[in-house]
Amino acid sequence: MRPLAQRAFAEWLGTAFLLAAVVGSGIMAERLAGGNAALALLCNTIPTGAILVVLILAFGPVSGAHFNPAVSFAFAIRQQARWTDTAVYVAAQIAGAIAGVWIAHLMFDLEVWQVSTTARTGTGQWIAETVATFGLLTTIFGVAARTPQATAYAVGLYITSAYWFTASTSFANPAVTIARALSNTFAGIAPDGVVPFIAAQLAGACLAIPVARVLWRPPIDAAVKA
Amino acid sequence: MRPLAQRAFAEWLGTAFLLAAVVGSGIMAERLAGGNAALALLCNTIPTGAILVVLILAFGPVSGAHFNPAVSFAFAIRQQARWTDTAVYVAAQIAGAIAGVWIAHLMFDLEVWQVSTTARTGTGQWIAETVATFGLLTTIFGVAARTPQATAYAVGLYITSAYWFTASTSFANPAVTIARALSNTFAGIAPDGVVPFIAAQLAGACLAIPVARVLWRPPIDAAVKA
Amino acid sequence: MRPLAQRAFAEWLGTAFLLAAVVGSGIMAERLAGGNAALALLCNTIPTGAILVVLILAFGPVSGAHFNPAVSFAFAIRQQARWTDTAVYVAAQIAGAIAGVWIAHLMFDLEVWQVSTTARTGTGQWIAETVATFGLLTTIFGVAARTPQATAYAVGLYITSAYWFTASTSFANPAVTIARALSNTFAGIAPDGVVPFIAAQLAGACLAIPVARVLWRPPIDAAVKA
Amino acid sequence: MRPLAQRAFAEWLGTAFLLAAVVGSGIMAERLAGGNAALALLCNTIPTGAILVVLILAFGPVSGAHFNPAVSFAFAIRQQARWTDTAVYVAAQIAGAIAGVWIAHLMFDLEVWQVSTTARTGTGQWIAETVATFGLLTTIFGVAARTPQATAYAVGLYITSAYWFTASTSFANPAVTIARALSNTFAGIAPDGVVPFIAAQLAGACLAIPVARVLWRPPIDAAVKA
Repeated sequence: MRPLAQRAFAEWLGTAFLLAAVVGSGIMAERLAGGNAALALLCNTIPTGAILVVLILAFGPVSGAHFNPAVSFAFAIRQQARWTDTAVYVAAQIAGAIAGVWIAHLMFDLEVWQVSTTARTGTGQWIAETVATFGLLTTIFGVAARTPQATAYAVGLYITSAYWFTASTSFANPAVTIARALSNTFAGIAPDGVVPFIAAQLAGACLAIPVARVLWRPPIDAAVKA
Repeated sequence: MRPLAQRAFAEWLGTAFLLAAVVGSGIMAERLAGGNAALALLCNTIPTGAILVVLILAFGPVSGAHFNPAVSFAFAIRQQARWTDTAVYVAAQIAGAIAGVWIAHLMFDLEVWQVSTTARTGTGQWIAETVATFGLLTTIFGVAARTPQATAYAVGLYITSAYWFTASTSFANPAVTIARALSNTFAGIAPDGVVPFIAAQLAGACLAIPVARVLWRPPIDAAVKA
Repeated sequence: MRPLAQRAFAEWLGTAFLLAAVVGSGIMAERLAGGNAALALLCNTIPTGAILVVLILAFGPVSGAHFNPAVSFAFAIRQQARWTDTAVYVAAQIAGAIAGVWIAHLMFDLEVWQVSTTARTGTGQWIAETVATFGLLTTIFGVAARTPQATAYAVGLYITSAYWFTASTSFANPAVTIARALSNTFAGIAPDGVVPFIAAQLAGACLAIPVARVLWRPPIDAAVKA
Repeated sequence: MRPLAQRAFAEWLGTAFLLAAVVGSGIMAERLAGGNAALALLCNTIPTGAILVVLILAFGPVSGAHFNPAVSFAFAIRQQARWTDTAVYVAAQIAGAIAGVWIAHLMFDLEVWQVSTTARTGTGQWIAETVATFGLLTTIFGVAARTPQATAYAVGLYITSAYWFTASTSFANPAVTIARALSNTFAGIAPDGVVPFIAAQLAGACLAIPVARVLWRPPIDAAVKA
């Protein structure tokens, strides 16, 4: 395994790019969409899904390309990662996410420091975040179990889909949630909404662990590793 | 082969996610599209195609990732599956499909129990469902015969295309058809339309079996397994 | 090599599906797009590119998945196919293309027999068809030379792109051109335009052959076959 | 390694196709989009990302498929290419880029010789070009280090994303920047903006080199080459 500092740097940089893409494309999409919300969300979705594929292909071999405390946390619970490494990963992810938001603001000539006023709250949204994170973890555990070289594409496509089928547009990531509270743009979430979102996300992650144990552990068949 | 209970659970969960994606993205798309039907269908198409790739990658190694009674039925006719297993698969698919619709309703703060009022009927629609299901089965049989690792991508892309080129937006799946009757949203179908749609789908599946026998059985050439 | 009748059937069926997708998605897109031509073309492009990937994956191992007289003709010139086989392929492609158009009309409850009135003519359009076909053949020769398993994706993506960057929306296929003359819908072309389009396409194909000989013949390096 | 003339021809032809796609799809998108800027940019983005995948698959085995002086320059600094070869590559790329723009103009019946009047300038845009090129090089170095067969897809997806998340729509390529100054269409850039854009791009490339050295050099683990 590579040195922790190298892996943490990969998590920091990858999460920064992810948030620059999420927030930057949200700003661009909203500016250009002429008030059509579906078109704005579509032009936020495609860049987000695409950059996830790229980042997982590029950084996966270095750090595992989690970019998401819920993912790191789940790997620790599954004893696939040390808890000390996990703590460093989570710190790097949050710091990277915030840096990415600020870079997006700089590119679009906006104030760097912002706080979102977009309320995202309610039972439907919280169920959605649980479903979204459960689905994300199930995707990762299931695809990585048999065809790990397809994981990057699967995660990108999953988020592309989940932006639309979950009522919350699928944050599914505590670091992303925290950072998006610091952008009063299309992708923002008012700070009030952050803690319930993260709680719902961690619930989804916890639910995915026993399900994955039932589905992909024994028996192992190697035939499908194509 | 894995235990039937495990495979049935994979069919249940995968079909639930498929319907949550189909119905959920339909709700989101229609809410945001500002009345533009092409944009709404596009924002329903992309999430549906994307989630199919993900679900087949994740659940394929467990259950074969049918998520579709027409597919399970065709495999049984081709003697690639036992009829008792097929009956369990179909039950799991229908139960999962309905669960997925209800989860979508919960996420979007809608009544869980709904019945669609969207009429989908007529000769053109029925021909379309036969063509759509024939094409889906032909895709599965053809791609799985030579490059099984590409099946997930092929099925996702096929449905992405078929949403647009079939007049019925390509249900192509009896479990999906039944479940969509229980959602009075963008993706719904009034109950009157369900039986003819399923009949047309099964006709398409039956047509695909002899065609596949002609095209992909003898001679087997292994050279293209890349 | 497989029997010629089997290969010709694959060419017939695949080209029929291709045209059903091109014409069917054009009808659906135009009906739903509310007069926005970019949205209509986008909703025609994505299904066309997607079905091409599927059809090449499914039928490639049977017949080579040409679906295009310009492709079959170029393979014959390169001495990769017999001229008699090529004649049968071209006949199957044209017959399949026309069948596909008629199936699309049936699905959308339109008159089966139609003749297009959409004028597509002029120097720009003809240059565009030459460029489009040259690019298609260059894609096929180049990708098949080194990474044949990527050809399906490359061709689908090429046409996705060429629909937009060529002024003619990239017919790039004589069988497609003939068949689209028989549909007075979004994808149609008035019969006057057919012969110049086919001439331009064949010019593009002829141009691609020496270019490919320069680029991909000697020296062969096998290292990139991944 | 192949003869330099053959590689330079591949760089010329590939860059010509890239620019024909960027400028041609921009013209088509703007003509059809009915004034909706998000739709126009989306219909410029998808063809650009798609053609990049195709061109890298087709020409990568010949020349490496740089199509970009910033990429060639970075490989030379990393001592993966000779400086004399690099000079020839850059000349071929610039000549090809200009040829591609002119071909696009011919296809769309526009004057061949044009000069853009679209101002693209300001700190945000320059930061964006540095970020865009840094990200492009990081993608190439990272993906090529471990899964080189995925590079074509990664680059296409990266540019698809970067068109939206960078305020400048991600030129990220000095040859592209020069050539787009010669098109007074959707994709154009007024000549005043060219030199600062190229400076920002080269800064991004220079930044990517030490970052890649930290992330992907030692230790090499071969396990992920799937």
